[in-house]
Amino acid sequence: MSNDTNVTWHESSVSRQMREKRNGHKGCVIWFTGLSGSGKSTVANTLDHKLYHAGYHSVVLDGDNVRHGLNAGPGMLKATHGEEFSNRFGLGFSAIDREENIRRIGAVADIFARTGIIALTAFISPYRIDRDKVRNTLNPGEFIEVFVDAPLEVCEQRDPKGLYKKARAGEIKGFTGIDDPYEEPLAPELVLQSATKTPDILADEIISFLTDKGIIHA
Amino acid sequence: MSNDTNVTWHESSVSRQMREKRNGHKGCVIWFTGLSGSGKSTVANTLDHKLYHAGYHSVVLDGDNVRHGLNAGPGMLKATHGEEFSNRFGLGFSAIDREENIRRIGAVADIFARTGIIALTAFISPYRIDRDKVRNTLNPGEFIEVFVDAPLEVCEQRDPKGLYKKARAGEIKGFTGIDDPYEEPLAPELVLQSATKTPDILADEIISFLTDKGIIHA
Repeated sequence: MSNDTNVTWHESSVSRQMREKRNGHKGCVIWFTGLSGSGKSTVANTLDHKLYHAGYHSVVLDGDNVRHGLNAGPGMLKATHGEEFSNRFGLGFSAIDREENIRRIGAVADIFARTGIIALTAFISPYRIDRDKVRNTLNPGEFIEVFVDAPLEVCEQRDPKGLYKKARAGEIKGFTGIDDPYEEPLAPELVLQSATKTPDILADEIISFLTDKGIIHA
Repeated sequence: MSNDTNVTWHESSVSRQMREKRNGHKGCVIWFTGLSGSGKSTVANTLDHKLYHAGYHSVVLDGDNVRHGLNAGPGMLKATHGEEFSNRFGLGFSAIDREENIRRIGAVADIFARTGIIALTAFISPYRIDRDKVRNTLNPGEFIEVFVDAPLEVCEQRDPKGLYKKARAGEIKGFTGIDDPYEEPLAPELVLQSATKTPDILADEIISFLTDKGIIHA
């Protein structure tokens, strides 16, 4: 600190460009979408590791750090204002709740991108219109939609959390791919074939894309 | 990338410790609170500049990047599901809306801190209980409450956005300090006297604190 004799106070923010220059790469949002069990989180975390070890700055937003905090369900929101609060702001799985879930994640990913960080989001995000709304809040080229494509049968066979089994048994209602639709992206930046390729190879496909677009350097 | 022959895929996330080690400092939340016009944003941005130039990773969350996105008001939320959506999720300035505003900001700041970043939040955050709730979601020592203390008269005289004038004229209702309470922190980590000291000096006081606590190094 003591060498920084030129630094005085500023009303203005540190610019995005300054942060990107320091980090050595651009900020963006890599939006994974696909069925439960398609491999979104696995590929996102694999990519995150590779980016980290190459010196890039990234973050993974997924159910682990969002569904317990920012987008907690009604039962998890213990608020001063009680039930009225948790019923209004807690998020379930109706269409309107899913829209708000995705909207908030998009807003947070946007803040990370503006901070010069590569934000990886791993959510089913089944509705096209909700994903497109996030895309439209970002600058062109900053929203990279990655469709993690695996047949329903493959995802259901993997069933890492036992959710398909519960959905088939009727214990979970409105489960994407079973009794709620998944709308495939019409023009995603990338399609990953996760039934036939390893997460390692798929993460490398994304790295190639990021390099081609000048977001990271080779 | 090509030198990273040891990197294979991981289910696990890159740990917070790994990110902090790489960044060379710890993540935390520096929560500025105080009246409108007390200097929260100015001190936060001054600190952000100093941290940036010293090589630390930080972000400022304030009205500029939150009130237009994550915590937009009802009128700004143009949703697929229309009025029902914006009325439910759009945030105004009632006590319940303020609680949710602060809760979401706290959740996002927490994600930044876990990513090894120093998150600076600059919001009036007038209610003690709402701030304490954010404090309780973080690990001990990671929530640094900074009370930016300036007499109401000074803030009202500054009135950088003309808001006090409008509040006195009755054009804004529920304005903190005029017809809505500001609850001073009972045990903030730092109190900054912003009526008598420059933002530059106040930012340095925070840097001293961060250094003493081992969050950054001298």
